[in-house]
Amino acid sequence: MEITIVTGNKGKFREFEELAAELSGGLLRMKWADVPKEEIQAESLEEIALHAANSVLKSGRLDPPFFVEDSGLFIEALSGFPGPYSAYVHKKIGNEGILKLMDGVENRRATFKCVIAFVSAPSAPPRLFVGSVSGRIAKKARGDKGFGYDPIFEFSGRTFAELDTKEKNRVSHRGQAFRKLLRYLGVSYKER
Amino acid sequence: MEITIVTGNKGKFREFEELAAELSGGLLRMKWADVPKEEIQAESLEEIALHAANSVLKSGRLDPPFFVEDSGLFIEALSGFPGPYSAYVHKKIGNEGILKLMDGVENRRATFKCVIAFVSAPSAPPRLFVGSVSGRIAKKARGDKGFGYDPIFEFSGRTFAELDTKEKNRVSHRGQAFRKLLRYLGVSYKER
Repeated sequence: MEITIVTGNKGKFREFEELAAELSGGLLRMKWADVPKEEIQAESLEEIALHAANSVLKSGRLDPPFFVEDSGLFIEALSGFPGPYSAYVHKKIGNEGILKLMDGVENRRATFKCVIAFVSAPSAPPRLFVGSVSGRIAKKARGDKGFGYDPIFEFSGRTFAELDTKEKNRVSHRGQAFRKLLRYLGVSYKER
Repeated sequence: MEITIVTGNKGKFREFEELAAELSGGLLRMKWADVPKEEIQAESLEEIALHAANSVLKSGRLDPPFFVEDSGLFIEALSGFPGPYSAYVHKKIGNEGILKLMDGVENRRATFKCVIAFVSAPSAPPRLFVGSVSGRIAKKARGDKGFGYDPIFEFSGRTFAELDTKEKNRVSHRGQAFRKLLRYLGVSYKER
């Protein structure tokens, strides 16, 4: 079985490719398409991913099955900032900017969330699969693996950038959402 | 002549209403409609405003002439942050958050920018009118007029929140863009 992921981010494609290989035992192969999708401004990842999936479907430029994914970091003390605009904010102010905003802030709770909007057939409405992981904003960036906010997101004492891919996939928001998709597809998976 | 502004923000409507009264000498009256418009994620206000205007036109829920407006604060030292996401960022981290990010930063140059996307008739593509004003990020918030980032945006030594509406309208990004629209409409205007 083949599923296409629609993204402009090659790193994201690679992460899903590894997840698929690892969890489906070869039953599921990921393909990559960088076709245009409409990203709306909204506070919910669900709304953004749903709209994006529908826009790809309507454009007729890609045949199902495919999915789009949207994810974000929600910091409790910052009312959920940067949330759905995580990628933009990271590009502009980086982990350094987030650490500056969190300077002197006691409550460091944060959640990584991922939403997959999956389209199985031309006439089927997209289905959503959501995953999330709770952790803390570190005092300093640590680790050199992963990407984005990984170096400042602490889970059980280590940052996501200090975990290797397999360790990260086991607990990450993206891993959780993808497992739900695999279960829905009936692709048996195993943890290694 | 009547033009409808499409916005969910009553403060914005009021500002345009005052601008119209002041600059057109009663020739132009503003109406307010809060119909749904599609806001996309993009780094350019032009793209966002254009898409929003087209979405209102396509929805058939409002007859031209109308316009939508999008504006943002672009801080040079933060690579243009918060830019097109200014409203969201303000709601989440406020002026306090921006001042924290700018703590110890020498280069305090910033630009307020406004884009008006005007639709004159059902078959006409939207026309864009752009205004901008350059200033500096203050060290502390000052003043209680205006809204949003006004208390931390300094122009000629005073913040926008220290100016009364007429003074602000004379120099503001919104005032500049609106004057261009008036000129295009051939509505003679005078400065008071």
